[in-house]
Amino acid sequence: MRNIALVLTYEGSAYHGWQLQKKEVTIAQMMERAAQMVVGHSVHMTGCGRTDAGVHAKRYVANFKTTSAIPAERLPYALNTHLPSDIAVLSAMDVPESFNAIGSCVRKEYTYLIYNARIRDPFYVNRAWFYPSILDEKIMQRAASAFVGTHDFAAVRSVGTEVRSTVRTVYDFSVEREEQKIYLRVSANGFLYNMARAMVGTVVYAAEGKLTPDQIPLILDAGVRTAAGPTAPAGGLYMTHLWYDDGEVCFDVG
Amino acid sequence: MRNIALVLTYEGSAYHGWQLQKKEVTIAQMMERAAQMVVGHSVHMTGCGRTDAGVHAKRYVANFKTTSAIPAERLPYALNTHLPSDIAVLSAMDVPESFNAIGSCVRKEYTYLIYNARIRDPFYVNRAWFYPSILDEKIMQRAASAFVGTHDFAAVRSVGTEVRSTVRTVYDFSVEREEQKIYLRVSANGFLYNMARAMVGTVVYAAEGKLTPDQIPLILDAGVRTAAGPTAPAGGLYMTHLWYDDGEVCFDVG
Repeated sequence: MRNIALVLTYEGSAYHGWQLQKKEVTIAQMMERAAQMVVGHSVHMTGCGRTDAGVHAKRYVANFKTTSAIPAERLPYALNTHLPSDIAVLSAMDVPESFNAIGSCVRKEYTYLIYNARIRDPFYVNRAWFYPSILDEKIMQRAASAFVGTHDFAAVRSVGTEVRSTVRTVYDFSVEREEQKIYLRVSANGFLYNMARAMVGTVVYAAEGKLTPDQIPLILDAGVRTAAGPTAPAGGLYMTHLWYDDGEVCFDVG
Repeated sequence: MRNIALVLTYEGSAYHGWQLQKKEVTIAQMMERAAQMVVGHSVHMTGCGRTDAGVHAKRYVANFKTTSAIPAERLPYALNTHLPSDIAVLSAMDVPESFNAIGSCVRKEYTYLIYNARIRDPFYVNRAWFYPSILDEKIMQRAASAFVGTHDFAAVRSVGTEVRSTVRTVYDFSVEREEQKIYLRVSANGFLYNMARAMVGTVVYAAEGKLTPDQIPLILDAGVRTAAGPTAPAGGLYMTHLWYDDGEVCFDVG
């Protein structure tokens, strides 16, 4: 049995996230359907993480097992023929049996885009958080930096998924402005449900003066969700970089 | 009666172009409805040109007459409240009675975007022409340059609108690649129906070796539409720059 890793990208506006759901259309469903058409047997696709409805991916990794002999380098073209145009497979490779898109992932980066101008840009509808009051990116950076390190992130997650621990390590959290666009890039060894969007909401709260960067460690210590900022809208969130290392394979895509 | 000029931008995927139509939703219809809600009387909105279904505008100019006393600088915010999020008014100004968004326009620029890579990018669906075979932008530039000047452009227009003359002056037609994106920028004193998209299709035909840049003057001379290349898809076309000069007002937006 071959184990194939795929790198894909998707514009998530039309989907209810990655994970298979009974009633809603998801990326996993589109991917499994396309893979079945290509390899000729039923396929289970493992993704590198749940993404919420409306969240995008510049880079996303999935893997599936197959008996097909189709060369890995031909798979992207074969799969793309059977995928809707808002999903594209960028590359494919054979990986060891043990590789798992979520289990072998050691680090993920999300990028959040805020469109910060007094008048909206129609080309960023569903692709950025339109925020008309002007935000100071220096205060945002101070707030973002307060999340870096190993902490209990219970204060910035939504309840919904069972997890063994709410402790995670944020490696990096940068805030950069390019004219009207503010890019918030955050990487961690893992993200709790809604954690990226709740951290973005908290950073924006700091820029609005509703809390100070100094309060963030206290908010994390207290672990109370309502003490942090709101969950930022899904459309501004992009999965952008993934790092893999499971002893057998080591690579990153971003 | 005041005469107000508006600069707007729109993502045209959801619309059947600018011009009012009986059954289809158009930009003009959205604009007139929004303006009526703001000024409290019925409004006729004059646009700087028909754009086709699915065509976008980074910049577009319209004007309308009103008895309202609302200051011009407040109009964008007031109008945007009543517009869908894929249309935005960027600015407004009082202009002389004689100003007309189409009649006073002396030059227009369209930019056409080709996404030229073997694998599509989901973020350019409906916003670029995905063209998987690799195009040589140097040949494209030679073909584009052949359109510059004053010519009869009957060979690169679709029949449908009555016009007095099919002679136009193309001032500039540049082709620039930025990685997978090829930008074709063309400005003229006016464009015939589908002229920009037919010129783009012809430039791509030249890059594909289906005609040579040298043949373009002959194709224009013959005036036969079928001798030129096909009409490029609407989603790649953006109105990007407009120049006005009617003796009383002189400005450009882009």
